[in-house]
Amino acid sequence: MRLSDLPTPALVLDRARLRRNIEAMTRRYQALGVRLRPHLKTSKSADVARMAVEGHFGGITVSTLKEAEHFAAHGFRDILYAVCISPAKLVQAAALIRKGVALTLITDDLDTAKEIAFQGGKLGVMFEVLVEVDCGEARSGVAVESEDLPAIARALHAGPGSVLAGVLVHGGQSYACRTLQAVTEVAEIERSTAVRAAQRLRDAGLPCGTVSIGSTPTALHGKDYSGITEVRCGVYMFGDLFQSEIGSCGHGDIAVSVVSSVIGQRRKENRVLIDAGALALSKDRSTGNTPHDVGFGRVLDMQAGDSLGDVTVVGVHQEHGMVEGRTPLPFERLPVGAKVRVLPNHACITSAAYDRYHVIDGSDEIVAIWERCNGW
Amino acid sequence: MRLSDLPTPALVLDRARLRRNIEAMTRRYQALGVRLRPHLKTSKSADVARMAVEGHFGGITVSTLKEAEHFAAHGFRDILYAVCISPAKLVQAAALIRKGVALTLITDDLDTAKEIAFQGGKLGVMFEVLVEVDCGEARSGVAVESEDLPAIARALHAGPGSVLAGVLVHGGQSYACRTLQAVTEVAEIERSTAVRAAQRLRDAGLPCGTVSIGSTPTALHGKDYSGITEVRCGVYMFGDLFQSEIGSCGHGDIAVSVVSSVIGQRRKENRVLIDAGALALSKDRSTGNTPHDVGFGRVLDMQAGDSLGDVTVVGVHQEHGMVEGRTPLPFERLPVGAKVRVLPNHACITSAAYDRYHVIDGSDEIVAIWERCNGW
Repeated sequence: MRLSDLPTPALVLDRARLRRNIEAMTRRYQALGVRLRPHLKTSKSADVARMAVEGHFGGITVSTLKEAEHFAAHGFRDILYAVCISPAKLVQAAALIRKGVALTLITDDLDTAKEIAFQGGKLGVMFEVLVEVDCGEARSGVAVESEDLPAIARALHAGPGSVLAGVLVHGGQSYACRTLQAVTEVAEIERSTAVRAAQRLRDAGLPCGTVSIGSTPTALHGKDYSGITEVRCGVYMFGDLFQSEIGSCGHGDIAVSVVSSVIGQRRKENRVLIDAGALALSKDRSTGNTPHDVGFGRVLDMQAGDSLGDVTVVGVHQEHGMVEGRTPLPFERLPVGAKVRVLPNHACITSAAYDRYHVIDGSDEIVAIWERCNGW
Repeated sequence: MRLSDLPTPALVLDRARLRRNIEAMTRRYQALGVRLRPHLKTSKSADVARMAVEGHFGGITVSTLKEAEHFAAHGFRDILYAVCISPAKLVQAAALIRKGVALTLITDDLDTAKEIAFQGGKLGVMFEVLVEVDCGEARSGVAVESEDLPAIARALHAGPGSVLAGVLVHGGQSYACRTLQAVTEVAEIERSTAVRAAQRLRDAGLPCGTVSIGSTPTALHGKDYSGITEVRCGVYMFGDLFQSEIGSCGHGDIAVSVVSSVIGQRRKENRVLIDAGALALSKDRSTGNTPHDVGFGRVLDMQAGDSLGDVTVVGVHQEHGMVEGRTPLPFERLPVGAKVRVLPNHACITSAAYDRYHVIDGSDEIVAIWERCNGW
């Protein structure tokens, strides 16, 4: 099957670009001598995961226990679930550990740490747990100088059903940066916070085997990773328009796109309608606060080129995308039924609307179908 | 299983509210003596569809051919696919018609109309087609006084593989209204445009059996439906925070919610984190332009009451929701592991992240699991 034969809307993954993005990150981390633990929350695909761990130690990061189960079923054995655990999820986590998965959890809460330690004993497993430390994102994580940090660590170290595995930091404020210099500064804050947190544990006589940091921008633009044992990042594999705006990739690196059909023309308004709307593209507007606001996505021709002009999806209804050009649209090339490709603002969110990738690699032939693991 | 036992995040459907919403619309349309063709794009559920058609003629509206196939497989035989068709989808549509489904298509494009007529002949089916007419939404549809309207109708009437079924109008600009008076005015514009379009076809000697209008606001607040043969609407079944803002329902009518667990506290910032983020709630911000901006959703206690205060999801990351109160949060009631319910901005978009509903009905017991038909 060819790209142009796909029923629309459909999600396309360009394996050549994916490979190039993965190899660039792999070369970087092999040169740095730092372990890379790829985050699979973007792709949710075992096929992508196998490419991402190549040349690395094999550990991966996930954002849901469903992903953990999916990747475990596909042979992955070292999995970090990098969202703070709630106690009701411990039974599910224990089941994975009993199957032989080295599953690592995270927490930033003292009562939860005690509950993990207790539940592990009750469930007959040892939960490996990292303490999440905030480095300025203000999403989750304890303050590095807080009394909570050693207290949580001590509770996990005390057991009976938990092992203090180390600390985890996420420099997610890098997404708000608009210059590479600013990203580099966040990367150093992320690193130094993690190293300081590890030092505090060691000063308290506690072990800290893992010092984990990461976000795609800081993983790409940090200058120093000393004291760090592993780096997590994920969206670098696919890239997207937002990552392009903050300097993580170029448009030519973006590996996922949505193939869509024109379903209407409105020549007076210099507009066409496509069958990719709010569900097919998502309502993510993350380029809205960047210099190049592309609405709900950038519209390319079927060769992923910009021969249609500077064309974006300016609005979405559930199954309608409203496409406009900054210059007159080439309507003769966009009759009803014509197909286009749309680059996403945010690869993680757009991809989540689909249960599979149609994979291309160097031509317009669909060379594989790769399944995704959605939901919870 | 009880609501509080659900793994989170999970989508919950309150059948008592659903029934009440459906019955209210049914009473209205039975009293008006106008046929109701419920739109299933919100629920994408055969169980909901069966409730929605009760007391009506049995026809339904869908937004994808995948929905059409799903509902056909569940016994529905009169289905309107209310998004303009692109020619490549005609083979799939013909397959449904051959299975005995009375499938109606729509178009607003002359070349497509000719292609439908030609393909129907080639595929050995008669495509029933409505001409979409714009009444001011400026999404799709031809202008009511345009030459395209009779031209498209003539092409469909000429066949050989198509039947001119009538006209379809969508008063979607009602979503931009902020008063019921304004909605009522749009409803009259929608009605009068449809009636005028039908008259133009009849004046040209063409048949116009179906005169179809609809959107939830105009279906609820129109004063006159004379000349109309059927009304389409869908989100009235579930309601949501945006519909509440524009007067289509109250918060107490909203039938879908997301159950989520607290995964962190940040007392200094008067904030908790929950495990429902951008994927579980969607990035829809449709209340952003209304008097009561509720961020990414309103947070209720597990009894769907407001005992937690005026609490909303102020930000989302992929699997994190940031929850803040306008007044101090009751942190003692929101430890890690505590569960809450989140009302969605936009029921159609939030529901699309889930493959099933956990159905409750008058208590906290899960009385059924209803599947959804997502994707394309």
